[in-house]
Amino acid sequence: MLKLYYAPGTCALASHIALEEVGAPYSAERLNFKNNQQNSPDYLKINPKGRVPALVTDSGVLTETPAILAFIAQSFPNAKLAPQDSFAFAQVQSINSYLCSTVHVAHAHKMRGARWATEETSFADFKRKVPETMTACFTLIERDMLKGPWVMGEQYTICDPYLYTIAGWLEGDGVDLSKLPKVVAHRQRMEGRPAVQKVLADEKA
Amino acid sequence: MLKLYYAPGTCALASHIALEEVGAPYSAERLNFKNNQQNSPDYLKINPKGRVPALVTDSGVLTETPAILAFIAQSFPNAKLAPQDSFAFAQVQSINSYLCSTVHVAHAHKMRGARWATEETSFADFKRKVPETMTACFTLIERDMLKGPWVMGEQYTICDPYLYTIAGWLEGDGVDLSKLPKVVAHRQRMEGRPAVQKVLADEKA
Ligand SMILES: N[C@@H](CCC(=O)N[C@@H](CS)C(=O)NCC(=O)O)C(=O)O
Ligand SMILES: N[C@@H](CCC(=O)N[C@@H](CS)C(=O)NCC(=O)O)C(=O)O
Repeated sequence: MLKLYYAPGTCALASHIALEEVGAPYSAERLNFKNNQQNSPDYLKINPKGRVPALVTDSGVLTETPAILAFIAQSFPNAKLAPQDSFAFAQVQSINSYLCSTVHVAHAHKMRGARWATEETSFADFKRKVPETMTACFTLIERDMLKGPWVMGEQYTICDPYLYTIAGWLEGDGVDLSKLPKVVAHRQRMEGRPAVQKVLADEKA
Repeated sequence: MLKLYYAPGTCALASHIALEEVGAPYSAERLNFKNNQQNSPDYLKINPKGRVPALVTDSGVLTETPAILAFIAQSFPNAKLAPQDSFAFAQVQSINSYLCSTVHVAHAHKMRGARWATEETSFADFKRKVPETMTACFTLIERDMLKGPWVMGEQYTICDPYLYTIAGWLEGDGVDLSKLPKVVAHRQRMEGRPAVQKVLADEKA
């Protein structure tokens, strides 16, 4: 059985939704970030990076959202969460890699500035720029990446829960949603899915 | 035929080496970063992100190093640059995702601080912290990720050119290499490979 370590409000939501979508047998283990549980000795044995998500599988532990999502899609091929064609699969990985390395990172500068800097003035500088960087990322997503109705077009894939997760941070990041109608419609479409509703309820419970 | 857009000294080296390793028919197109060619109208038509690498394929353009590397491995399966087993493949993607979203990003704070901040004092702060963040990343890589002789053990994979590329930045990032014997040995082993020698020569020519 699979076990997902997550914390509410984090990027782990993407993997959590994907597990639910494929109907995988899994359990979800919540970490308490307020107690810094992600850096506790017990959790560092599971994920030495001190981050979520981490997925415990029969073959070992997997970290990094794009890798976990691809693993879930490939382990449950009947759910068709990733295209078979190798170029389309690479496009899925490209979008997820962009979300991970550029969009998530742009957002993280708001609260996790201590990863890259030391001074309070730098943290304040980061915070001021987050609306601009997140707007730039999502302007590109709206224009070039979100085909509609789902990210890759007609096929719902592992890009969808990942985009949905990060798009959930936009209000908090000070982004003007009126310029992003496709992203907003995608978020609403996601919230119509039973798997998403179940996971949101579980993470809140 | 494949066409790779690159600039010398960048993360595009990983994709360049992988193309050479699989014996792909490809051409390599150099961009001049000194002229800001990555943001020229012509190049933005190819990659609207204004970054390298970008791989032009018969099916369309691919961006993002982990996606390009996986595409090269899957398009040339005889070269065996990615494991068949789905957990091992996910591990490869996990390592490449970490290199992309955490290690490359830590390094980028040295020269590309304007992506996330505005003030000169912040840029100076970032620069001071780069040796610490890159040392932390590579301490984890040395201890947990680099199995040896190659990243994934006996099989040379798409993790190897990517690790090699980023490890090439360590001296410039002020990291003490004496604590990273496996990373240093891996770099030397890479430089013994004809494909690596050829690409290094081509990027310098
Ligand atoms: N590249 C990783 C990033 C994981 C990550 O940064 N997770 C955040 C939550 S969104 C975290 O665990 N932060 C805890 C901390 O920084 O202490 C991924 O995509 O999975
Ligand atoms: N996540 C992308 C990052 C690409 C990237 O940032 N490339 C750098 C070179 S290492 C670049 O093109 N920089 C040009 C610029 O910032 O203007 C990837 O892994 O391919």
